[in-house]
Amino acid sequence: MAVISPSRRLRRTPFSDGVEAAGVKAYTVYNRMLLPTVFESVEADYHHLKNHVQVWDVSVERQVELRGPDAARLMQMLTPRDLRGMLPGRCFYVPIVDETGGMLNDPVAVKLAEDRWWISIADSDLLLWVKGIANGYRLDVLVDEPDVSPLAVQGPKADDLMARVFGASVRDVKFFRFGLFEFEGREFVIARSGYSKQGGFEIYVEGADIAMPLWDALFKAGEDLEVRAGCPNAVERIEGGLLSYGNDMTDDNTPHECGLGRFCDTQTAIGCIGRDALLRVAKEGPLQQIRAMTIDGDRVPSCDRAWPVYGDGHKVGQITSAAWSPDHHTNVAIGMVRMTHWNSGTVLEVETQDGMREAVVRPGFWA
Amino acid sequence: MAVISPSRRLRRTPFSDGVEAAGVKAYTVYNRMLLPTVFESVEADYHHLKNHVQVWDVSVERQVELRGPDAARLMQMLTPRDLRGMLPGRCFYVPIVDETGGMLNDPVAVKLAEDRWWISIADSDLLLWVKGIANGYRLDVLVDEPDVSPLAVQGPKADDLMARVFGASVRDVKFFRFGLFEFEGREFVIARSGYSKQGGFEIYVEGADIAMPLWDALFKAGEDLEVRAGCPNAVERIEGGLLSYGNDMTDDNTPHECGLGRFCDTQTAIGCIGRDALLRVAKEGPLQQIRAMTIDGDRVPSCDRAWPVYGDGHKVGQITSAAWSPDHHTNVAIGMVRMTHWNSGTVLEVETQDGMREAVVRPGFWA
Repeated sequence: MAVISPSRRLRRTPFSDGVEAAGVKAYTVYNRMLLPTVFESVEADYHHLKNHVQVWDVSVERQVELRGPDAARLMQMLTPRDLRGMLPGRCFYVPIVDETGGMLNDPVAVKLAEDRWWISIADSDLLLWVKGIANGYRLDVLVDEPDVSPLAVQGPKADDLMARVFGASVRDVKFFRFGLFEFEGREFVIARSGYSKQGGFEIYVEGADIAMPLWDALFKAGEDLEVRAGCPNAVERIEGGLLSYGNDMTDDNTPHECGLGRFCDTQTAIGCIGRDALLRVAKEGPLQQIRAMTIDGDRVPSCDRAWPVYGDGHKVGQITSAAWSPDHHTNVAIGMVRMTHWNSGTVLEVETQDGMREAVVRPGFWA
Repeated sequence: MAVISPSRRLRRTPFSDGVEAAGVKAYTVYNRMLLPTVFESVEADYHHLKNHVQVWDVSVERQVELRGPDAARLMQMLTPRDLRGMLPGRCFYVPIVDETGGMLNDPVAVKLAEDRWWISIADSDLLLWVKGIANGYRLDVLVDEPDVSPLAVQGPKADDLMARVFGASVRDVKFFRFGLFEFEGREFVIARSGYSKQGGFEIYVEGADIAMPLWDALFKAGEDLEVRAGCPNAVERIEGGLLSYGNDMTDDNTPHECGLGRFCDTQTAIGCIGRDALLRVAKEGPLQQIRAMTIDGDRVPSCDRAWPVYGDGHKVGQITSAAWSPDHHTNVAIGMVRMTHWNSGTVLEVETQDGMREAVVRPGFWA
């Protein structure tokens, strides 16, 4: 595998010193920033995540901050999810679409106050879209990337570790809600969320200066919990059906194709820029959709490109994420399949860079 | 150095098969796509580039295509460079600024026709800004990323190699102009441009299917010219003063701070979104500016973060690119320095991750 050439452009994070000291072995680049991908090995990291607790540097989840009288209006322009009932203290997973209904990002919107929001983004410069819209519509809102670097604490022992550092009341935070918690005299937004199915929290660390003190405190408090540095795990997230923007979906896809129709209230999301384009697909449904699939045989090669999927001799889709699952003893995969071939149990052929394999559509994801 | 984890999200290019066969050793990620950084070694690649000819996969220079009646108006909204006198067939280096005058990108604009432009971008999702502006101002224009992957032919023998594949008339293309040339019955925009000071061309390869046939034809035609696969060279581009967006400048900086004031016609660039914000700096000049610098001592470590620069005990700037120059026997660097300390010959201190060094402001770049 090729090495990655360091440069300022591939931004380090406020936790990079800790990540390096923990022996990071591989990175990806996400939002022009370094995201660890392997510490011990993908499989060892996977087992550890499912049994213990990990601290993840997910600073790459950059925030787009909206602040001002038009913040809520702008937020609704970005997404077909109806935000009218959303109270401060809530986190909403929101598909962001352009005027054609194509996905530009799939972030979590954090409502800090009526006039202040953070959008915790996946891998695209959503800031530029939001700034362009705010400028073009002359909205009364400030749009910026604040000095906020999320740190995730994930795994079955996450509650125990967090309680030791932030107090027992952190256990009461409900899924996709957040509370304010103190560390060294500073207040942090802490949400019960994260890019795994093992449970845990995301700490929105505001201020690069407090990053390493918090990192060190978590590791010190968790020694007997076998806390380790970790990262989103390529296998675990496929098992759990956690989509990856840029891998499993791009601006070619509508939210409905991505199986995110339940996050679209297209009729009532008045003001959403992509609303007109999405009304028909919201009613009739998509022609292709994300599916969980298994791929037969031994370990698949790296899914470094979209693998065409064939049924009855025609291309009917593509697989965009795939990995060997130690727990399920098969290759788990995420793909997009046309409706003619998307029923559970359908047997398809998939073309990897190392040859053809058989793939089977699953009834759902594993976790 | 850590390895890079492959995924579809870090897009391969239509030339990736050729790049891999040529033995690429390292990559960076640029516009969410793989950009080779090393083949033999940075130094061996550097000497070869200065003496022979290289073929570079610079597909990462994604194009933003503007098409329609409002294309020219939109293009002028994006930049403080006055585009009124620009004829089709010309390429302009254009700073792109937001409403505060902050740099969003520093691409080359290619004017194909009055109503059709390509913007050949540096490392930011400029497409999202342009789409947002087009939508917000309700412009009559299509904005998209076409299937165009630039291939650069760089080095002193570039003219010879290109003439063998595209005919002798390619030699007549003037700097930052382009012509249309044929290969296997297909027409390509070919400009005399590129991210080196060694001369050469950029071929805007339209259609992924023709990419490898063209790659192979260039290598076959150039055997006796010692043609090799190459890539933008970290040392040569610093010597030449070729700035790198994300390294040497970000949206914190105005074009004037980046030494790009000569590409700003702020008074007459009517319609430019950042015009109001830039009028004062255009008149009074910036408080800090890009400078070429040398750093004493032996080879500097990787410049993987901004290095603070001190003068008279205060922080007066930062260095953002640095490398050992085999030809100049010193460390060459690019930094941003406050006007109190930017005069040629000023001795400064620079803080690298491996300790303090002495740096000296130069009168200009090396090439």
